[in-house]
Amino acid sequence: MTNTNIKKLEELIYEINETIANYKNGIVDDHPFDIAKDLQDIREIDFNEYKSICKKIPSELFAQILINMPTYIQEEITSVISEQKVAKVTSNMDSDDASLLIYNISQKDESSAQTVLSKLNIEEQQIIEELNAYEFNEAGAYMQKELFSVNLKENIGDALKRLKEKKDLHLLSNIFHAFLVDDDNSFLGSIGLEELILFERSQKFEEIPADKIEHYSYSDKGDASDIVNMFTNYDLNALAIVDSNNKLLGRVTHNDISTLMQEQDTKQLYSLAGVNDKIEEEESIYKIGKNRAFWLSINLITAILASLVIGIFDTTIQSLVALAVLMPIVASMGGNAGTQTLTVTVRQMALGDIEYDDAKKTIIKEVTISLVNGFLFAVVIGLIAYFWFKIPLLGLVIAISMVINLLSAGFFGAVIPLVLEKFKIDPAIGSTVILTTVTDIVGFFSFLGLATIILL
Amino acid sequence: MTNTNIKKLEELIYEINETIANYKNGIVDDHPFDIAKDLQDIREIDFNEYKSICKKIPSELFAQILINMPTYIQEEITSVISEQKVAKVTSNMDSDDASLLIYNISQKDESSAQTVLSKLNIEEQQIIEELNAYEFNEAGAYMQKELFSVNLKENIGDALKRLKEKKDLHLLSNIFHAFLVDDDNSFLGSIGLEELILFERSQKFEEIPADKIEHYSYSDKGDASDIVNMFTNYDLNALAIVDSNNKLLGRVTHNDISTLMQEQDTKQLYSLAGVNDKIEEEESIYKIGKNRAFWLSINLITAILASLVIGIFDTTIQSLVALAVLMPIVASMGGNAGTQTLTVTVRQMALGDIEYDDAKKTIIKEVTISLVNGFLFAVVIGLIAYFWFKIPLLGLVIAISMVINLLSAGFFGAVIPLVLEKFKIDPAIGSTVILTTVTDIVGFFSFLGLATIILL
Repeated sequence: MTNTNIKKLEELIYEINETIANYKNGIVDDHPFDIAKDLQDIREIDFNEYKSICKKIPSELFAQILINMPTYIQEEITSVISEQKVAKVTSNMDSDDASLLIYNISQKDESSAQTVLSKLNIEEQQIIEELNAYEFNEAGAYMQKELFSVNLKENIGDALKRLKEKKDLHLLSNIFHAFLVDDDNSFLGSIGLEELILFERSQKFEEIPADKIEHYSYSDKGDASDIVNMFTNYDLNALAIVDSNNKLLGRVTHNDISTLMQEQDTKQLYSLAGVNDKIEEEESIYKIGKNRAFWLSINLITAILASLVIGIFDTTIQSLVALAVLMPIVASMGGNAGTQTLTVTVRQMALGDIEYDDAKKTIIKEVTISLVNGFLFAVVIGLIAYFWFKIPLLGLVIAISMVINLLSAGFFGAVIPLVLEKFKIDPAIGSTVILTTVTDIVGFFSFLGLATIILL
Repeated sequence: MTNTNIKKLEELIYEINETIANYKNGIVDDHPFDIAKDLQDIREIDFNEYKSICKKIPSELFAQILINMPTYIQEEITSVISEQKVAKVTSNMDSDDASLLIYNISQKDESSAQTVLSKLNIEEQQIIEELNAYEFNEAGAYMQKELFSVNLKENIGDALKRLKEKKDLHLLSNIFHAFLVDDDNSFLGSIGLEELILFERSQKFEEIPADKIEHYSYSDKGDASDIVNMFTNYDLNALAIVDSNNKLLGRVTHNDISTLMQEQDTKQLYSLAGVNDKIEEEESIYKIGKNRAFWLSINLITAILASLVIGIFDTTIQSLVALAVLMPIVASMGGNAGTQTLTVTVRQMALGDIEYDDAKKTIIKEVTISLVNGFLFAVVIGLIAYFWFKIPLLGLVIAISMVINLLSAGFFGAVIPLVLEKFKIDPAIGSTVILTTVTDIVGFFSFLGLATIILL
């Protein structure tokens, strides 16, 4: 350990011990997110020290810290603190965080996850199993069961008393609405706290006028990515999740959604660059490198395909070496123009600005832009090639192939994500590789092919 | 107009007239976001029809619709409805939306914006001028002035009566907290409605125990992108914005933040692909194409630089045309590996996962990964080149240059964004072009240079 590390470690340990002592006296001075950051720093410098501190942190505080920790730390948690304590920590979490923790542990050690689960009470076990039965793209996977539901016939004052009890027991937090249900737990609507606070406690919920009640809800089996757009388009704070019979199952809050949104955006960006968002979060450089190597392998195959195309024209190149000098320009411009189109199309599809119905409009727009830019850069590169090599027809060849390649870049940049989406494949994954394969091959083939016909 | 368009237009007009009629009877059946979408569709099919409908929509409803419209539609609004009506619409907006609208109009027609502004009352004018005086990267630019502030000595019941009056007048909505201030409007803390609702109306705010009060606030001159991380890390609903003397100026809500977050993510993704997020939102294909051409021009220059490097080695290529066939592989692999590193670095910097202090750690990680993958792909491509062209030394040459290029890809992929950030330049803008210039030039130079030395 370096000296700076020793000093940093001492400071961090001092701070965290302070926080624990304060917490035991009922004082919360740091946000759990910040404690989690400090704890991660300790873990990186000295794993044993980290382990012994984790053992000291009270379960209720640890629950808040752990939900702010990355997946790989949650995965290994049963090797850091006892399964008994992990169970206690889990009990102190909201159901969505608890089920995610159990899922993460199970990814590394299924039997350990089962042990933790078995130490929870029956109700907690059932809830976690219910939530973890959802697929990742289902809305239900992101809901929490903790919510403030009220019966239409109930007194507002009675409901608030119940809310207070649950809040005092730390069973409920982040409340935005009272969710109205009937005797069968069917969802009837939700009333925001900013409305509810203005009514008398002696009133019943059924006395609240209809225009104060919101009616948004979403099916547990529905597509999770649709909820993100619902929250941003309709400015929601929380959303009731219901089953196919309209029974209230749980809720999703805007905090869950902004986390999900950030994750989706990271995934999209990473997918376009040929990296995996989940694996990049891992600690192991080996795993990260392996995944990147996978995408590089695919790129190698497509690069070799492009080279095979060049190989067809080896005698042409031998008789005019200027072709070898110029050919990467055509391919590079196609790749860039195509990436522009592809990125805009993928993003606007994700934001709901392009639907499959608009496909024709999008393609026409992109082809128009790429065609106009194609002609522009055809003239520029044609003149450059002519003045560089003093061969007029070489300028013509590169100009024509520039138009052809930028046209195909615009066309395929728009069509590839639209087609992938049509087949229910994430349009961000793999589309860049397909696109650059097209623009490389079209670029080299058109340029060298035209050169063979026109120049030789 | 095609037949489908005529039919669609008729349906849309019918629906929107229905909505207007309902609204006048106090019934809101569609979310303004959805009405905005329909209105945009009408605008695209028949601009005159759009204009005449806009004139019919009541100002209060139009305010809600217009805030859901894209920038270019807000910019032109004074040419669609009278400046008098735009002023009325503006009055019905929250201050943040109102100031953005005036700003947008001023971008296209400064005098028209001034006319609208002059038709507002003095207080409204002052607020809009205050908000529009902030820079785009300042937190104050994203706040709204409408908030529920309460005095410490006030009765909870009295404050709620005030809230009800303001809500009934549509002056306040989306309330999450009561912001506590003293007699001088200094910010003391905020109490969430979910806590406030549990206290008796006869109690004073000063009777609320300290542990129910939150203390997050942010300076109006602070960096707007920091607030995004505050909201996601600390799960905030709304945040008080204060001046340098801790006077309460306004608030930012999670809805503002998720919009800002989505915009920032779009900007990041687009910047890496060489497109501008604001311009891509424009209606004009000409403007979009022009901006993309700008980035393509820069790419053309760098592609020519790479070609000049190839040109140095023209006699080498002439004597062994296999070099021309293989050289794009080295460049392409470098570009891809570099893009992987660059994207991950840019994203993790934006999410606050990499600070400038971690620069060394990031660079070491990225160089390690790219070096290992460099050796891996060196062996693979070395063998392929050997079996393809039956020249053992050619395999060696491409293998060495693969290691060199992937190493520089990893190094520059991490260093470029870190250095740009250091100089306060957005690390996403332009970094891809710089990177691929490096990987192209290093790729071609190392491969052809080594070939000249080793093979000839």
